[in-house]
Amino acid sequence: MYGNIKLYAGSACPELAQRVADYIGIRLSRWEIITFPNENIFIRLNSSVRGQDVYLIQTHNRPVHDNIMEMLIAIDCFKRDSAGRVTVVIPYMSYSQSDKKDQPRVPITARLLADMIEVAGADRWITIDLHAGQIQGFYKIPGDSLTAFHIICNYVRRKNLDATVVTTDLGYAKGGRNYAAALGFSLAFVEKRRVGNEVGREALTLIGSVAGKDVLIVDDLVDTAGSVQQAVEVVRANGARDVYLAFTHAVLSPPALERLAGLDIKEIVTTDTLPLDPDHRLPNMTVLTVAELLGEVIMRSHEGRSVGELFNE
Amino acid sequence: MYGNIKLYAGSACPELAQRVADYIGIRLSRWEIITFPNENIFIRLNSSVRGQDVYLIQTHNRPVHDNIMEMLIAIDCFKRDSAGRVTVVIPYMSYSQSDKKDQPRVPITARLLADMIEVAGADRWITIDLHAGQIQGFYKIPGDSLTAFHIICNYVRRKNLDATVVTTDLGYAKGGRNYAAALGFSLAFVEKRRVGNEVGREALTLIGSVAGKDVLIVDDLVDTAGSVQQAVEVVRANGARDVYLAFTHAVLSPPALERLAGLDIKEIVTTDTLPLDPDHRLPNMTVLTVAELLGEVIMRSHEGRSVGELFNE
Amino acid sequence: MYGNIKLYAGSACPELAQRVADYIGIRLSRWEIITFPNENIFIRLNSSVRGQDVYLIQTHNRPVHDNIMEMLIAIDCFKRDSAGRVTVVIPYMSYSQSDKKDQPRVPITARLLADMIEVAGADRWITIDLHAGQIQGFYKIPGDSLTAFHIICNYVRRKNLDATVVTTDLGYAKGGRNYAAALGFSLAFVEKRRVGNEVGREALTLIGSVAGKDVLIVDDLVDTAGSVQQAVEVVRANGARDVYLAFTHAVLSPPALERLAGLDIKEIVTTDTLPLDPDHRLPNMTVLTVAELLGEVIMRSHEGRSVGELFNE
Amino acid sequence: MYGNIKLYAGSACPELAQRVADYIGIRLSRWEIITFPNENIFIRLNSSVRGQDVYLIQTHNRPVHDNIMEMLIAIDCFKRDSAGRVTVVIPYMSYSQSDKKDQPRVPITARLLADMIEVAGADRWITIDLHAGQIQGFYKIPGDSLTAFHIICNYVRRKNLDATVVTTDLGYAKGGRNYAAALGFSLAFVEKRRVGNEVGREALTLIGSVAGKDVLIVDDLVDTAGSVQQAVEVVRANGARDVYLAFTHAVLSPPALERLAGLDIKEIVTTDTLPLDPDHRLPNMTVLTVAELLGEVIMRSHEGRSVGELFNE
Amino acid sequence: MYGNIKLYAGSACPELAQRVADYIGIRLSRWEIITFPNENIFIRLNSSVRGQDVYLIQTHNRPVHDNIMEMLIAIDCFKRDSAGRVTVVIPYMSYSQSDKKDQPRVPITARLLADMIEVAGADRWITIDLHAGQIQGFYKIPGDSLTAFHIICNYVRRKNLDATVVTTDLGYAKGGRNYAAALGFSLAFVEKRRVGNEVGREALTLIGSVAGKDVLIVDDLVDTAGSVQQAVEVVRANGARDVYLAFTHAVLSPPALERLAGLDIKEIVTTDTLPLDPDHRLPNMTVLTVAELLGEVIMRSHEGRSVGELFNE
Amino acid sequence: MYGNIKLYAGSACPELAQRVADYIGIRLSRWEIITFPNENIFIRLNSSVRGQDVYLIQTHNRPVHDNIMEMLIAIDCFKRDSAGRVTVVIPYMSYSQSDKKDQPRVPITARLLADMIEVAGADRWITIDLHAGQIQGFYKIPGDSLTAFHIICNYVRRKNLDATVVTTDLGYAKGGRNYAAALGFSLAFVEKRRVGNEVGREALTLIGSVAGKDVLIVDDLVDTAGSVQQAVEVVRANGARDVYLAFTHAVLSPPALERLAGLDIKEIVTTDTLPLDPDHRLPNMTVLTVAELLGEVIMRSHEGRSVGELFNE
Repeated sequence: MYGNIKLYAGSACPELAQRVADYIGIRLSRWEIITFPNENIFIRLNSSVRGQDVYLIQTHNRPVHDNIMEMLIAIDCFKRDSAGRVTVVIPYMSYSQSDKKDQPRVPITARLLADMIEVAGADRWITIDLHAGQIQGFYKIPGDSLTAFHIICNYVRRKNLDATVVTTDLGYAKGGRNYAAALGFSLAFVEKRRVGNEVGREALTLIGSVAGKDVLIVDDLVDTAGSVQQAVEVVRANGARDVYLAFTHAVLSPPALERLAGLDIKEIVTTDTLPLDPDHRLPNMTVLTVAELLGEVIMRSHEGRSVGELFNE
Repeated sequence: MYGNIKLYAGSACPELAQRVADYIGIRLSRWEIITFPNENIFIRLNSSVRGQDVYLIQTHNRPVHDNIMEMLIAIDCFKRDSAGRVTVVIPYMSYSQSDKKDQPRVPITARLLADMIEVAGADRWITIDLHAGQIQGFYKIPGDSLTAFHIICNYVRRKNLDATVVTTDLGYAKGGRNYAAALGFSLAFVEKRRVGNEVGREALTLIGSVAGKDVLIVDDLVDTAGSVQQAVEVVRANGARDVYLAFTHAVLSPPALERLAGLDIKEIVTTDTLPLDPDHRLPNMTVLTVAELLGEVIMRSHEGRSVGELFNE
Repeated sequence: MYGNIKLYAGSACPELAQRVADYIGIRLSRWEIITFPNENIFIRLNSSVRGQDVYLIQTHNRPVHDNIMEMLIAIDCFKRDSAGRVTVVIPYMSYSQSDKKDQPRVPITARLLADMIEVAGADRWITIDLHAGQIQGFYKIPGDSLTAFHIICNYVRRKNLDATVVTTDLGYAKGGRNYAAALGFSLAFVEKRRVGNEVGREALTLIGSVAGKDVLIVDDLVDTAGSVQQAVEVVRANGARDVYLAFTHAVLSPPALERLAGLDIKEIVTTDTLPLDPDHRLPNMTVLTVAELLGEVIMRSHEGRSVGELFNE
Repeated sequence: MYGNIKLYAGSACPELAQRVADYIGIRLSRWEIITFPNENIFIRLNSSVRGQDVYLIQTHNRPVHDNIMEMLIAIDCFKRDSAGRVTVVIPYMSYSQSDKKDQPRVPITARLLADMIEVAGADRWITIDLHAGQIQGFYKIPGDSLTAFHIICNYVRRKNLDATVVTTDLGYAKGGRNYAAALGFSLAFVEKRRVGNEVGREALTLIGSVAGKDVLIVDDLVDTAGSVQQAVEVVRANGARDVYLAFTHAVLSPPALERLAGLDIKEIVTTDTLPLDPDHRLPNMTVLTVAELLGEVIMRSHEGRSVGELFNE
Repeated sequence: MYGNIKLYAGSACPELAQRVADYIGIRLSRWEIITFPNENIFIRLNSSVRGQDVYLIQTHNRPVHDNIMEMLIAIDCFKRDSAGRVTVVIPYMSYSQSDKKDQPRVPITARLLADMIEVAGADRWITIDLHAGQIQGFYKIPGDSLTAFHIICNYVRRKNLDATVVTTDLGYAKGGRNYAAALGFSLAFVEKRRVGNEVGREALTLIGSVAGKDVLIVDDLVDTAGSVQQAVEVVRANGARDVYLAFTHAVLSPPALERLAGLDIKEIVTTDTLPLDPDHRLPNMTVLTVAELLGEVIMRSHEGRSVGELFNE
Repeated sequence: MYGNIKLYAGSACPELAQRVADYIGIRLSRWEIITFPNENIFIRLNSSVRGQDVYLIQTHNRPVHDNIMEMLIAIDCFKRDSAGRVTVVIPYMSYSQSDKKDQPRVPITARLLADMIEVAGADRWITIDLHAGQIQGFYKIPGDSLTAFHIICNYVRRKNLDATVVTTDLGYAKGGRNYAAALGFSLAFVEKRRVGNEVGREALTLIGSVAGKDVLIVDDLVDTAGSVQQAVEVVRANGARDVYLAFTHAVLSPPALERLAGLDIKEIVTTDTLPLDPDHRLPNMTVLTVAELLGEVIMRSHEGRSVGELFNE
């Protein structure tokens, strides 16, 4: 319907893009991405995409704004070369936490980002584990909001744990419930409450029980790992046995790695939606790949077959 | 900046609109809203709004679609009469629960509604307690997302309860936390999990403890009151003392009133974002008004003064 | 070009949709349309429409606003499921009479409706006998404005009448001319003029002559049948023989059926652009189907063949 | 609200613009409109319109396309000079007859024109006696659709005729009714029907009666006057006394003046929505001015006062 | 991908369109373009373009505004007939010199033109030798900006001249450099500077040297030939041998032909992007055709093959 | 018309913003700009801008993409806080050199940037010395394209040089002419031409003469200073006396400062459209300020007075 699949790897995640290409059985399309001394990004495609079905894989890794601009410029470039259709594949979408005005006089940058992607000329988007499902509605163009939930659950299930799922924050309570239900685990939450008027002084409470059980802390992403650190302390204080940690997006801003290295966690399970430098991987870290998921969705999208079927067991 | 305030009362909530007008100290503008035998709605303004600052108050009460269409037609009417600015005030915004694709092949009607309001020609919107804050981002036009939280808290605070806040659903966990923190209460949740493969068979668990304490069940809205009924049963079974219920939007679809009437709840606290027929009010129901809130925001909007200040204590 | 035809039947006209599907030789696609207790409509497709050529048949029958909202939500649903193309087929389009500001301070709801259909994401529209042809221009997206004129003429022609065509209103004078010219009949009009300042007091005049001739009253639609009643009285008073009535859209708002039943009309000819409950059909009513017309147009649209040819004899 | 009124005269109707300026009591703003040898139009404002309330008066006189382009370029020029608001005043709007697809494979140029005006940057429009009221709905921006009906009626009323209103075409039947009702006249129509298959061979019928009465032929515009010529012949053949002709827009394409000069018409009443070269005015022609109407509407628009009041007697 | 190629010839350049059709090996599609007495243009396609890949060839020859309007109306007509894709081919795009505000209070008509083409419904554009490459960026829809540079260079190269390239204006300095570099010639410029305050009094300077060499004056277009005349005088005064003139677009507004006829130019090389009436061709004029270029690009566009390859030697 | 001026200083040029505020006589508005560990930018206004006339001064200094994103997020923030009008002041606009497709398969990032600014919600823009004036046409919203030309000329004029203006590139030939004409200097150009097929091997030619004269090299911006270095060498080789360098935008990417420090230039004249760290200023560098220019334009914009007058001497 839209010519051939043309798969381009953005600068932010070339290895993942290669894995996706391998799954599909095609070669990555070639282009030049040049950053001039004045920091301007310039793109030139090595061959025409006229009438083709173009997929750009670009995750929002750091440097975040450079990667976002590269993505937008690439979309413009594909469009102006008369691509048949442009789909931007964003394994981890940045600014997902700036998704509402929860105080006066602040922006909603996740919507701004959606508008920027649309105005650049994308026809469709694909992403994994949005921080809030409502962000789908920030886009007018259609898209596929995927999840690594099944990939992580399948992995954890094989461990045959008898555990309680714990979330580090009440905002992820429903996400925690989904893990607990899928794995047949019980459920508890860490509640944070500010103490007095001092910024940063917080009282932590465990709602629910973890005594004598393994604990699986879950989240959609881990950034600085501050909340994870608190959660581990709380569940330990409440008598937990082994602690596991599972999350999709390894944002891991400093000092996340230092913090995680210092915690008594049996295993950290995450995915490659963001590249993890092998040097920075902790010994107890397991990185599952989303490449087959993305590759399968791209093929189905290209052929006009159902994507939803992938998630209906 | 935009002429005078012109305040119009939609068919869905004339009493609330009148209370807002009284607070501001103006008279409601007059118009004719006619429903023809073919069900088509026709609107004719009794006087011109050319260059004026128009506010339409229309809540999404039943009949929902008639009220939505009336709202949209009114916006078109104001725009085509060359209004200076049109602000639509929607105390309760319908379809807020259809805000994401949480399964394949479903719509995101809350975004559709936002687009419809924008394409009809509204310049701004005002609403109260959106089901999800992210719905703000469905709108490109600016708006004011207000909350009745302080109104309800102020009322409850005067009761000097020693209570636990309980939410009927984990999706409102963070909302529950806000109530608990503001009132100095502890926190617990009802978790629902499907049992086996039968639709409707659910196991209910209380996460956290309510034994020997009063319970304040909170939510943004109560629709059929099925979850409230379950929650009351669960907290009773877990040794709760008196049970209170507080929520902003009294959707109360059948059989909500029957259910609520049959439950042992000491007091039900809600607001007038949706009209409550006096005949249908239960004896234990307290209806707080949002009229002052809306009136104050409209005046500040008109004069270009801060709305956010209202919520910063 | 756009995958396969997927034909969906809206709630408003399932029988017509089935007839269209039969003509084309396909099965209606399956979906769930649920109305929640809070009146919100929810749609879920039973299978994917990714890349397919989707047609939704939904007429604007009563309850009008529920049917319009269902149509819009369905369009959003198809788009977000990445349909290749979405065509909305509206046999009878509501609000066509609200197509201009013929007095100050009124809306133009027919344009609003067009904008709503476009913003929901439709790519094309198909409709029959618009009240004013100019409504085509309210749409920026392309569409096919069909007519049941030939279907009705072919039927009437077989009666071998010697008749005068009469319109109940001067707004349809040109439409009347078209019937008269196609059938070789003469032409006359009923003119209404308000008498004095009292609302509703009207003087009726027949312009032209019907004495001693059969009369064929024609219109695009009949709503409450008030004008038809007046017209029958006028032509009777002017010496008409048998009276026939022909129109495309059987809106028939109360008390249309009572009125029509009380009039001495030999035959009432209409179509199934709006469903007519068999219980409510009058004995002298003939309902012609537009299913072949719609089916043929859908097939030609799908295959990229001319639709205009259908109307060029 | 938008600075001062700035009134610009387009090339097509400088005299009318001057009369409007005189009515308002301001001077026309000065600009240079240059046509280069390559026919490109260039505009330069003599002073800034930043923040001002700009009105451009440009009728769609011949050369039609040059005047349309000048209008669009002027709008762009005002917008880019940061005008506060731009209103385009088009006494006669061209292409109003290309307002629907009444046969396959034709454009709807009146909608195209509306889109061009909007995309050029106009905020509002004002026009007089649109060929079809529905063209208002082609515009998304608000506008004022005025009429010279009262001006013409007031003039005709002073003649104390006992006349029959006749329209030359059934498409203007309702317009004719409005004249007849306002003036207390009876009503008749000329019907044209093609004879056989030859192009141009038409049979003319008078529906209604004019015998022994004066006749007032009315229309919104007269172009080549072919239909007027036919109508005069028909009413003469049916025993009419004096014949008058009234219409708003004197398009008068060749050979209109020759035709009108050759007809036995007592008086031709029209307006100055299109400039009429004094040399080309026939001795029996009365040209009423719309300058006061436009001037009054511009002042009310500027001050945010009702325009609709002007038409409510 | 988009049905078959349908090639339509606008009124402005039927011969070129025929040459393009011949190159492609198809017949021009037939339509009727009628100009009514009121100067309104009406278009009717002889056959349907539903789902087809439509190309309209229309250059912006004089009468410029009639040709622009015809182009826009045709686009609307194709779109409303449900064309699969509409590409407008504009060999010479007018208003390219109105591409920036180089003084206050002027329009940017080239952007306005781009917006008009987009709002009319074009999906793509193709043009040759834009006056400024930046005009490509005025379009949001993709397009192909071609050049006749190689056609002209190939022709000139065969003459084996030893020449200096001269531009008549510093605005085309870089264009001159491109010619000089491609042909291996040296380079010089004519500089104009206003003298005193009198309009039109200019001093001309030659920057660089032409003494004893042939001169090739180059430009993208020649309009009134005033600058060419000055340039010839200056290079003659500076000792040039034979003078040649090469440019893409033969706008040649009066008195260009008279001027060119009076100058001692050995050969004038141009193209058929604008039609040149054989009667008006000067004896020393060579007109190269762009038909193969356009035909090749249309075929590649239709088949989804690279256009850029054509320009990469 | 739009409340009060609210002036915000972006992170990229706080000193220039302060100078502008001082000129206007107001205080900079306060806000918090936070960069989270995950590099996401967050903005919170300290007070409301509801109904106010907001100006954001943000130059596109390095880190370029961070500054662009901050600008866009700020615009979104102002809009969602219901600002009356948002004007973005960009003293130096990045990506201005990516303004056309001068080779196949490249983006037009300057247009993308314009679209991003518009979709973020800006109402107007102000910038200085665009690399190409046509970039004004990339914006649909109005703006003020200013120039530092007069500031630089006034400064140079006081030196009473007898000089030749030289441009380093033929693309700036017309800019060079403007300097030469304003200062009464002669004019020459450096032409670069690639030699053979090796990348980077270029032959440099001086077109025009500089022997025995001072030279003023001019440009709109200096980036890496490679072309300046070449130009200085060429004019030296051609017998120039003192060499001066003047340009608006001091981009000065590495190794510009090293290069400039090594060249025999008498004085380098530039402006503060980009911040120049005092440590990095060369001893022969004169930095003129654009603060008065911006301040004056902001005041005139706010008050609805002409900006163009500033440039008409």
